[in-house]
Formats: sequence, structure tokens, C-alpha cells
Amino acid sequence: MAILTSTTASGVANGTSNGTSNGSAQLSPSELDAKKLILNLVDKPKPIPAPESLVFGEIKTDHMLVVHFDPVNGWSAPEIKPYGPLSIDPASSCLQYCPNVFEGMKAYIGPDGEARLFRPEKNMQRLARSAARVALPKFDQDALLTLIKRLILVDKRWIPTKPGYSLYIRPTIIGTRSNLGVRHSDTATLFVILSPAVPTSKMASIQSRYSQYLIPFALGPEIDAASKGYDQILWLLETDCQSGEKGKKELRITEVGAMNVFVVVKRDDGHLDLITPPLDGTILPGVTRSSTLALAEAHTSGDITLPGVPSTLKLYTQEQPLTMSKLSTLYSEGKVVEFFGVGTAAIIAPVNKIGWNGQDLLVKQESPDGLGVIGHGILEMITGIQTGKTKFEDWSVPCE
Amino acid sequence: MAILTSTTASGVANGTSNGTSNGSAQLSPSELDAKKLILNLVDKPKPIPAPESLVFGEIKTDHMLVVHFDPVNGWSAPEIKPYGPLSIDPASSCLQYCPNVFEGMKAYIGPDGEARLFRPEKNMQRLARSAARVALPKFDQDALLTLIKRLILVDKRWIPTKPGYSLYIRPTIIGTRSNLGVRHSDTATLFVILSPAVPTSKMASIQSRYSQYLIPFALGPEIDAASKGYDQILWLLETDCQSGEKGKKELRITEVGAMNVFVVVKRDDGHLDLITPPLDGTILPGVTRSSTLALAEAHTSGDITLPGVPSTLKLYTQEQPLTMSKLSTLYSEGKVVEFFGVGTAAIIAPVNKIGWNGQDLLVKQESPDGLGVIGHGILEMITGIQTGKTKFEDWSVPCE
Repeated sequence: MAILTSTTASGVANGTSNGTSNGSAQLSPSELDAKKLILNLVDKPKPIPAPESLVFGEIKTDHMLVVHFDPVNGWSAPEIKPYGPLSIDPASSCLQYCPNVFEGMKAYIGPDGEARLFRPEKNMQRLARSAARVALPKFDQDALLTLIKRLILVDKRWIPTKPGYSLYIRPTIIGTRSNLGVRHSDTATLFVILSPAVPTSKMASIQSRYSQYLIPFALGPEIDAASKGYDQILWLLETDCQSGEKGKKELRITEVGAMNVFVVVKRDDGHLDLITPPLDGTILPGVTRSSTLALAEAHTSGDITLPGVPSTLKLYTQEQPLTMSKLSTLYSEGKVVEFFGVGTAAIIAPVNKIGWNGQDLLVKQESPDGLGVIGHGILEMITGIQTGKTKFEDWSVPCE
Repeated sequence: MAILTSTTASGVANGTSNGTSNGSAQLSPSELDAKKLILNLVDKPKPIPAPESLVFGEIKTDHMLVVHFDPVNGWSAPEIKPYGPLSIDPASSCLQYCPNVFEGMKAYIGPDGEARLFRPEKNMQRLARSAARVALPKFDQDALLTLIKRLILVDKRWIPTKPGYSLYIRPTIIGTRSNLGVRHSDTATLFVILSPAVPTSKMASIQSRYSQYLIPFALGPEIDAASKGYDQILWLLETDCQSGEKGKKELRITEVGAMNVFVVVKRDDGHLDLITPPLDGTILPGVTRSSTLALAEAHTSGDITLPGVPSTLKLYTQEQPLTMSKLSTLYSEGKVVEFFGVGTAAIIAPVNKIGWNGQDLLVKQESPDGLGVIGHGILEMITGIQTGKTKFEDWSVPCE
């Protein structure tokens, strides 16, 4: 089939295209339905770039999934079509008031050549929660997962087979109401795009403070951090002191870059604490965060042994507020043995330097990947599950 | 000239279109330059709708202004072209991380038939500040204002001549970097669209609390308010109590809908206080807010007399925190005589009912427009200036 022009290829602008629906004969808006899928494949697939040349999020695959929603027709027939621009009205809420939500997921090729997703139902649940929060339409989570699997199979040749590499998946829902009055968007477009991804990026150093409220994509402070030689922002939230001192403030660590945070602390009994901030509404309920906690607990209970971690070493997970003053104290006592961010993009990323009050807290590891024993063990375990080499519960979901 | 197709009509997707620049011969990126304007007018202008049929932000005029930025070429040649969809890459930051900013302005036709803007340099300054905050490119404010005036003259027939009606102007800058890595957008598109606007909307009732942080376009609570019979959200910010009681919280009124808030309070000396929250970073520095304060002060100093307001009645402006408990107290003492929101869209909008703790605070006015004497006087004064009937400083700027 030919590559469609951008105008006809996408009905975003008018928001009324509803491929196979019955129009006025229809009594209730259509659910998102994977069986209605329209396949519209490229004539000339793009060449696959060498994995070594990849930069995260830069290259997209041949195809994308697009579905439109309006309150009368419901969800349109989903379409897998050539990757290309969407046609968007300039008054559209996605450009004005930005009721837009997205997820980050990954597909992996295992030694058996099969494409797999990692705990994808968690991403579907979170996307549905995000959509509800900005009053975007509901969608059938199973149907979307089926469609994503189908899209991955269409572009399966794009999944790098090199260890550590993967195919990054970006499901996105945007509001398309083209009226400048401030209201929730009752029309929407759901699309999924794919980008081949490099392994864990190394982050040599991370700084600094940004207090008061987590603006998830405040893009100014990032430039400031880069200009000072740091890669990412360590996001802090100024809150009332929990110690009981009235009126006193404390700075809680929330996320690093767009990742959840873990600090590994030496205990007096020789074992380790894995401390991560609790899900109190100020941080992302990360899939990798929840997986890290579950795997540490499985190691401690003896159900698994994390690669390279002694089976007798216990890892006590602690979901508790982590303030900068507490971190500083643990650091000065020599108890901070590892610090890392966890997230879908990087899985586990070492934080080796934290700029704070004009000084640098150094948590350097001598290993080639910059990770310590615990970070490395969890990374190995997760990548083993993701590629189907290791079985753990039902975390790895084949696309076939 | 023909209406261009959406793909060729907009270079948003590739972000490199730079109409008249010299390409490689160019040494530094181009500034935004009004002299480079390309005019690309519609063949068949749309019919002008009857003013009475208008809904805010629904109908757009025949043309829009579009300019693209990339760090190599700088700003492209600005183009006034037929209103139509933009071609946007699905990985574009405007759909993903939303570094998008906008302004709201209005053009008016006076009895002399001339099109005028109201304090437009304030909007240019604020747009530049907003852009800097999300790390979008700088632009020449005078050049943009020149281009906006030109666009308004092209679509001048769209400005309703009926009293109170106007042409709403929405300058917007969106980030167009099409890479999923979280970074500031180094490419952007600036566009301006126009929509004929009805006069002050009447808001019969307004509620309620949304604490902790101002999410300017949190679109969920609005649905909740509507389901309870209210039109808009009264946004509250939970802060530490300023009265000195440690650990005690208070709820500060910040904005209503997307408007700044004024409450008119009877003083013991028979004069009035006009209380509005201070510009402490949590509220929009509104042009209508600043104009309301300036006009009230000019009335009190005797420089002007607000229509319908006795010249001997003094209006004392008070930029100070306004908490719900303070409002409740003033209300129960019978001292709240008017409550209104101010903003570019509605100018002055009466708030006649505030749902609070299961009760309604009623601030009803018997006048046809729902406004009290002060709100009405300020509205009359501002609309007089906007249409060129009344001169006040250099607030009214002709487009010619």
C-alpha cells in the first residue's frame, strides 16, 4: 500500500473519522476494539540503523498505531500505518492546555527469537489512571495491549538483538478538542510509536535541588544542571518536617531525572537496607521501582538469588521518606554504598555524584557499568526476565 | 492564491523550513523579522457568523500566522496563511512533554472603525517570560506585535462591531523537538490564531477547593464542579498560616477558572477595599488585574471617574493574601459587597455563589449583567478604552 498523505492518513484535525463504524445507525459509542484493526503497511521499509549508532528516542520504526475518539462514535477502527506526522488543528487542546498522557514500555528479543513485553498490564493500568486524571476517554486495556503486541510484531525486525538493547514503546493519548474555551477534551487521539533503544545510559553525576513541587517536565532546571556539569536533576520536595518540630521544613528526595530513586545503605548487622521514597502521590509509581522491590524481597526470602549477590546477604526494602539531611548524614557515616535511579528507559542507572550545598557526594563504583553489586544484580535479573532467559512469575509476556 | 495542503502549508514536522533565509551562507540564526512576512491569503473567505451565535473559542477566522524556529536557521520567514491543521510529528515534544505556552489578547473595533489592541506589549512580555520558563526560543517582541497587528488587519472583517464583542487572539509557541529523550525543545513553532468573541460571560455560581498546588489546567475538578451545579473552580492553595501559629495551615484564594480574583469589601469609614491576591508566583500576572488596580487607583486619586461610581467614593487597592476563612468572616459580617473574576476573555465576570463547606456564599447583584457598581464601572471604563472611546494613558494601541 502507498504511504498516505498526512491529511488523509490522520483524522486528528476533524476528530470525526471513524473508519468502520456505522455512523448514525450506531446506538452507543464504540469500545476500543482490536478486531477492527486496519493494517496499512509501508511500501519501502526504512533501513535498520546499527545498534551502536542509536541515541535514545531519536529513530522511529516504520509504523505507528493510531485510534481516534469522539463521544458520539467512540473509538475509531484502530489503524497500524506508516509512521508520519499527525494533522492537528492549531486550537487543539493538545497544543493549548495539554491534556496529554503517555507511557514508557519496552519490548525485548530473547535468545529464542521471540518478542516479549515486561509486565505490560502495569503500563495499561497506569495509562488508564493518567487518562482519567486529565479527563481523557476510557479505553479497553486488554484491547490496547493486543494492539501494541500486534504493532510490535509488524515492526519486530526493529528490535535490536544485541544484549541490553530493546524497542522502546511510547503509547500516548492527546486531547484534540479544537475550542479555546478551557474545558476537558471530549475528543482524543491515541497513538503508539516505537523507537529502538540503547542499553542503560550511564550517568556520571547528578545534581541538585528544585523544591516546592514536582513539575514533572520543568525543562529549565535541566539546562542549569547541564551547565554546571551534571546530567540530571535530583528532584526535591519541600515539606513539613516529620520529626515533630513545628514549622521546620525538610527537603525530600523524590525522583532523579524521570526515574525513581534507590539508595543502598549498610546496616549495623552487615545486611543492607534498600530505601526508596513511598508512593505518596508525589512520585511516579514506576514499574521498575515495583519490580526492584519485589526482586530484592524475593532474594531475601530465598526464592531467587540475584546474580552476583551472596544468597546470605539480606536486602531489607524500606519505602520511607528520604530527606537530603538524612542522606547527608548516612553519607558522612560512610553507610551509603550505592545510589541509583530506576525506570523503564534505563532500567537501573548509577548516580555517582550528587551536587549539594556546593559539595559533591560521591558514590562511585569501580565496575565497568558504574553500578554496585546490588544495582548490577537487579539489572541482570530484570534483563534476564525481559529477554525470557529467566522465568519470574508472569512478568514476561510474549507478543505472539 | 490557493489553500495549501496541510503538509506543504506547515513545516512543523521537519522543523527546517526557513522561507527566505540564506541557508549555509548565513552566519548567525535569524531573528524574528516582520519584514520577511509572506502573505498567502485564502481564495474563498468564510462567511462571518452572526455575533449572537458565537461561542467562545469555537469559530476561527480565515487566516493564521505561523513561524518556525530551529537553532541553526533561527526564525523562519513569518507566514500569514489560511487557517488549517499543522503537521506535527507524533514524537514532538508539544504532544509528549508539552513545553507549550500561550497568551490571550483581544482586538476591538471602535466607533471610528479602527481595530485596536489593549496593552499588547504586556502580553508580549509575558509570552517571552513563559517561553523562557520552559526553555523555548527567544523572539523579538516588537516584531511579533507588528505581525499580530498585520494578521488582525488581514482578518479585520471578523472583528464584531457589536458593543462588548471582540476578536480573541491566541499567540502560541509549541516545542517541536521530535525525540523522546526528555530535554528542552530546541526547535519550535510560533503561531497566532483568531476567534471572534462574545462579551463577558455570566457566571452564576462558582465553587470550591482544590488545594496544595495550582495545576493551571487540571481538567478533572472542573467536571466535578459542573456536576454539582457550579461553573468554575475557585482555586485554593494550602499554605502555612501567616498568623504566626506554627504548623497551622490556611487556604488561600488564588484564581477563579483562569481569572484573577477581586473582592470588594465595605470599610468602617464607608469607603471600599478592593482586595486581590499578591503576585507571589502562584497566580497569573494578569493584564486585566493590573488594569483594574490602576483604574481603581486613578479613580481614588481623582484622575478619572469610573462610570456609575460616585467620585467621592474611595477605592483602596489591597494586594494581600485572601484566605477562605477571612472571606467567610467578611461574608458573615455582611462586608462583602462584590466578588468578581478578571481576565482577558471575560474582562470582568461576576461570581455570585461560592460553594464552601456544604454551604453557598451568595454575592448576588440585582443588575442585568450580574455585576455590582464597582465591577460594572471598571468594565465600562476598560471597554471604553479598548474601543478607543475613552483615552487612558497609552493602553489602546491601533493596529494600523
